Amino acid sequence: MYDILFVQAGGTVDKAYLATESSHGVNFLIGGPAFHAILSRVPDKAFRHRPLLVCQKDSLFMDAMDRVKIRENIERAPEDKVVVTHGTDTILLTAVELSKIEGKTIVLTGAFTPERVRDSDADFNLGTAVAAVQLLPAGVYIALNGAVVPYQDYGK
Amino acid sequence: MYDILFVQAGGTVDKAYLATESSHGVNFLIGGPAFHAILSRVPDKAFRHRPLLVCQKDSLFMDAMDRVKIRENIERAPEDKVVVTHGTDTILLTAVELSKIEGKTIVLTGAFTPERVRDSDADFNLGTAVAAVQLLPAGVYIALNGAVVPYQDYGK
Amino acid sequence: MYDILFVQAGGTVDKAYLATESSHGVNFLIGGPAFHAILSRVPDKAFRHRPLLVCQKDSLFMDAMDRVKIRENIERAPEDKVVVTHGTDTILLTAVELSKIEGKTIVLTGAFTPERVRDSDADFNLGTAVAAVQLLPAGVYIALNGAVVPYQDYGK
Amino acid sequence: MYDILFVQAGGTVDKAYLATESSHGVNFLIGGPAFHAILSRVPDKAFRHRPLLVCQKDSLFMDAMDRVKIRENIERAPEDKVVVTHGTDTILLTAVELSKIEGKTIVLTGAFTPERVRDSDADFNLGTAVAAVQLLPAGVYIALNGAVVPYQDYGK
Repeated sequence: MYDILFVQAGGTVDKAYLATESSHGVNFLIGGPAFHAILSRVPDKAFRHRPLLVCQKDSLFMDAMDRVKIRENIERAPEDKVVVTHGTDTILLTAVELSKIEGKTIVLTGAFTPERVRDSDADFNLGTAVAAVQLLPAGVYIALNGAVVPYQDYGK
Repeated sequence: MYDILFVQAGGTVDKAYLATESSHGVNFLIGGPAFHAILSRVPDKAFRHRPLLVCQKDSLFMDAMDRVKIRENIERAPEDKVVVTHGTDTILLTAVELSKIEGKTIVLTGAFTPERVRDSDADFNLGTAVAAVQLLPAGVYIALNGAVVPYQDYGK
Repeated sequence: MYDILFVQAGGTVDKAYLATESSHGVNFLIGGPAFHAILSRVPDKAFRHRPLLVCQKDSLFMDAMDRVKIRENIERAPEDKVVVTHGTDTILLTAVELSKIEGKTIVLTGAFTPERVRDSDADFNLGTAVAAVQLLPAGVYIALNGAVVPYQDYGK
Repeated sequence: MYDILFVQAGGTVDKAYLATESSHGVNFLIGGPAFHAILSRVPDKAFRHRPLLVCQKDSLFMDAMDRVKIRENIERAPEDKVVVTHGTDTILLTAVELSKIEGKTIVLTGAFTPERVRDSDADFNLGTAVAAVQLLPAGVYIALNGAVVPYQDYGK
């Protein structure tokens, strides 16, 4: 039994369809963290997990202060294994900020299709992140598309 | 880009509901491999994958010959990264048989709820297996409940 | 605003996958009524609804006493619009028993694929039943496969 | 066996999440008709059905010409039973335009949550429309929230 901190940083993975009259077709808003729903589907989990809701933005709208806030929250946390769910557009920028943290294994993941949508890749991706966070040494990694790579190698 | 062999060995993960008049309520049969559906949900996969359909049984009904057949199929395969989807009841027995194989990283996984059922853990579990198979050295591992362990440690 | 009584009589529509060690592959058991989940997906419902859980059996195992019990429960109910979810194998037998009731519109429906399974027809079928129960005069009807027919015409 | 014409007029029911880099978080676009997916889940359908893709817009962006086009397509069609899937915001405006058609039973329906999203009401609603279109005399009706009403009574 080990502990994982799950950090919500927003992004597609958390988008929910909200029907509001005034939204003029732009109804896809970020709500609660997708990892709640995904982890509830896994029975007898081999890890304890603590959720931390830090940011509920599309990652294109995240700024430097958002990334500092995420970093500070992780620094303050007692857990040394951290999974961050994040928008894919700027996941690398946040990874760079988090690389200032020493002594923790941090895995960022996300999804191309929101967890709320049928045929989402969110469950699979969170699975890759949970395996990576327990198998890898301290450092910052990105888990997407079935690959787990040190953030320095992402997109190469 | 790397290659993963996906082996279907049956089990709950692959169970589908088949409505047949003569089945008297026992309609949950093993059909095609769940990993087809799960992998189709992951875009731009970072790995090539080859499916191998070896066994379509509830794992309680698997016998020694089934396990030998799975082992021989994996031995003959060119891939050195192998994910096996398997019933959870006898997953350890197959892992022991597969431990005779040298030089390959083999990860067995499965599900408590079939992939075809809403709120299945199959996607998450396959994600843990895919991360594990690329991160771990040669050996046989079991990925279930969010844990990835050498088969010798399973259930301890 | 009108009132509909929803009666659970068991059947495929209510089957859930239950992973139990001793079940030897026969893990598909009837649990709570599927109409709870389906109706929870419909916002701002135009009707009040009361659930009545009468029978949790595969319809092949229902006997004459089960059917009498369903009839008596409906007779005692104040609602004159009744939707019964039922197994498809013996839905006609129950319809015949319910035809002894006068002055109520009773629509029986079910599903070929359990509500819990992806790609179920349960939501669609319950929709046909809810429309039928408000549009049709007193009598007993079967709503399946997109058709709504008086029970006397079912299967013809 | 009878014939139903299914007309796609756009709206929430057909919205799909499309991940595109340039969309800046507005990724919910109208694609193919939801009724294809829903009807594929219903086995042994009791009706023949023909799809007609007339309009792929959020209903807030539909104009008078769109409504005329829908009307003319239905007028030209040989079927006298017609189900129209439509956005809920302006469903009444289209119903008024379609009331110029004589001799056909036309039922408009839609959804508050897209068919592609888990826990959608789309399947249930289409079920109410399919039952209504076979049970009601010629006229224009709206089937939403579990109610089927002549369009003149909608929202009252």
